[in-house]
Parts: sequence; structure tokens; C-alpha cells
Amino acid sequence: MIILGVDPGIATVGFGVISTSGSKQSLVRCGVIRTEAGTRLALRLRQIHDDVSELLDLYRPDAIAVEELFFNTNLKTGISVAHGRGVLILAGEEQGIPMFEYTPLQVKQTVAGYGRAQKKQVMEMVRRLLSMNEVPRPDDAADALAIAICHARVTNSLLNIDGGNICSTI
Amino acid sequence: MIILGVDPGIATVGFGVISTSGSKQSLVRCGVIRTEAGTRLALRLRQIHDDVSELLDLYRPDAIAVEELFFNTNLKTGISVAHGRGVLILAGEEQGIPMFEYTPLQVKQTVAGYGRAQKKQVMEMVRRLLSMNEVPRPDDAADALAIAICHARVTNSLLNIDGGNICSTI
Repeated sequence: MIILGVDPGIATVGFGVISTSGSKQSLVRCGVIRTEAGTRLALRLRQIHDDVSELLDLYRPDAIAVEELFFNTNLKTGISVAHGRGVLILAGEEQGIPMFEYTPLQVKQTVAGYGRAQKKQVMEMVRRLLSMNEVPRPDDAADALAIAICHARVTNSLLNIDGGNICSTI
Repeated sequence: MIILGVDPGIATVGFGVISTSGSKQSLVRCGVIRTEAGTRLALRLRQIHDDVSELLDLYRPDAIAVEELFFNTNLKTGISVAHGRGVLILAGEEQGIPMFEYTPLQVKQTVAGYGRAQKKQVMEMVRRLLSMNEVPRPDDAADALAIAICHARVTNSLLNIDGGNICSTI
């Protein structure tokens, strides 16, 4: 199974493509889409939409996993990010790819084992699980991989439960 | 000039198409796009995007005027609305139509003459300016017409100023 994880944003959108086989995950590609500050909002949204569409064309994922938005501090940033999140969700829907949402808590819990894990610990788990030599950079790309891994593990867990086994990955 | 005004939302998106000739505005069409509660977010976003695209195809507006988002109360609603706003802005950009943003204050000021105008007063001004027998319904459609009128008046004012005249419409 191929999974595209996305860390939504307006200036920087992190993405991570992984492939899964049983309970194993491996890295296909990760990176970020950057839009230029000061550019018209409409243009930034189009770039995000078109770049995500291109990733979907290239990797034909079976699922898109996207982080849910929670904003306690900067409402203005939250609204910008939600604009960007809207167009990337649309890109998935246009290609008929199922979309799954996870809260930051779910991602931490599923990837690092507990919800109060530090960012650094989550990154390190991403590195280990994907057998990478270094923690992926930049952070947004690593976050996107964590979201993809979260979906892989949840799905694997569900499959195991369906198959009558106790899931060993969560 | 044809202007499409949009009042963004996720459950209900108001739209209003007007045509302008000098300082006069007239109604072309108004209404709302409704998406069903409980439907997947991705599907609702696609519906908003596709319906707005259809309106743009039908009326080929010279400009899209969209209300800016301000949320002091319900952050969750704000984020949903911003998702919807993102995809409708994208629809405009895909067709190369210039997009203009106005704050609720600017709309009130420009349409009703002062920023603290009551909603009812703005609606009544919309009715009068478009020579309609009744205040347009539902409210979201009337709001969208107010945004379109706001853009028409601002543009006309700028044209007048460029022409060396004092603008009489604001």
C-alpha cells in the first residue's frame, strides 16, 4: 500500500510518501511544497493544489493522511493553513483517493507510543521505522512522514483485528 | 462589468452576480450553494469548488469579490469556513479571474454608508440599489450581493478618481 502523508500549511506544506508491506513501512519520498511569501493567496492555493495533484499522479497513493487542525494561539495563521488544507483535500477528492484525518495526539500516540511524546522523539521514531540514516529534514517533511506512518499503523492494526489477531504495532 | 460576490461557508455559500454600468448596478442572479451536513468534508469541498466553477463558466465575471474571514467566537466554524473559502478562491484562480477581498466593515461602509450599519440596513440598501421588490433571500445570497456591490462601488470610485472626479458613490 502507498500512503501520502501531508502536513498542511500555506507557506510550507510537508509531504511524505511511504509504502507498506505488512507491518513494515519504507520511505518512497519526502519533501515540502513552498509558496512564496507576499504572493497572492489565490496563486499560493493554486500552487499547493497543483503540486499535490502532481504528487498523486506520480505515486498513485491508496490513501492520503492529513493532520487535523488545532489552533489555540494564532487564529490568523490557522485560517491561512485551513485555506491550504482545503485545496489539498480537494486535490485528493478529484482523484478519488480516500482521505483520513488524524489529530497531532493520535500521530504521537501511534508513532512514538504515547501522546505526550516530544517532537524530537517522534522524529527519531520516524527515522528508525523508515530505516533512515538521519532524521528527515525539514521538520514539515518529517511531520508528514509521521502522519503517513500513523495511518499505516492504524490500518495495519485494523486489518489485524479483522483477521482475529491482536495488533502488535500499536 | 460582471461581478460575482461570494459569502464563503462550508454548509452554505452565498453567491450574487451583478452587472454594472457606470455607477449603476443590476441583479443578474443570486442564490446559495448548500452542502449536506454529515457528508465527508472532501465531498463538500468538491461540491463548492465545482459549483463555483460552473457559475464562473456561466457568467464569466470580470472579478470575484469575497468576504474576508474574522472569527472571534467559534474557531471550529472558522476553520471549516476557511476550507470552503480556499477551494472557491482556487476555482477563480483556475479560470484566471481577479479576486478581491473585503472586510465586513468595508462592505457595510461602502454599501450602507457607515461601518456600524445593522445587517437589516445593509440588506435594504442592497434591495434598493438593485431595484428589487423585496430583500433578497436567503441572507447568505443577500450578503454575497452586498459584497459584489461593494466591489462595484470601490472600482467605480477608483475609476472616478483616476478620471479626476470626486467619487459620489462612496
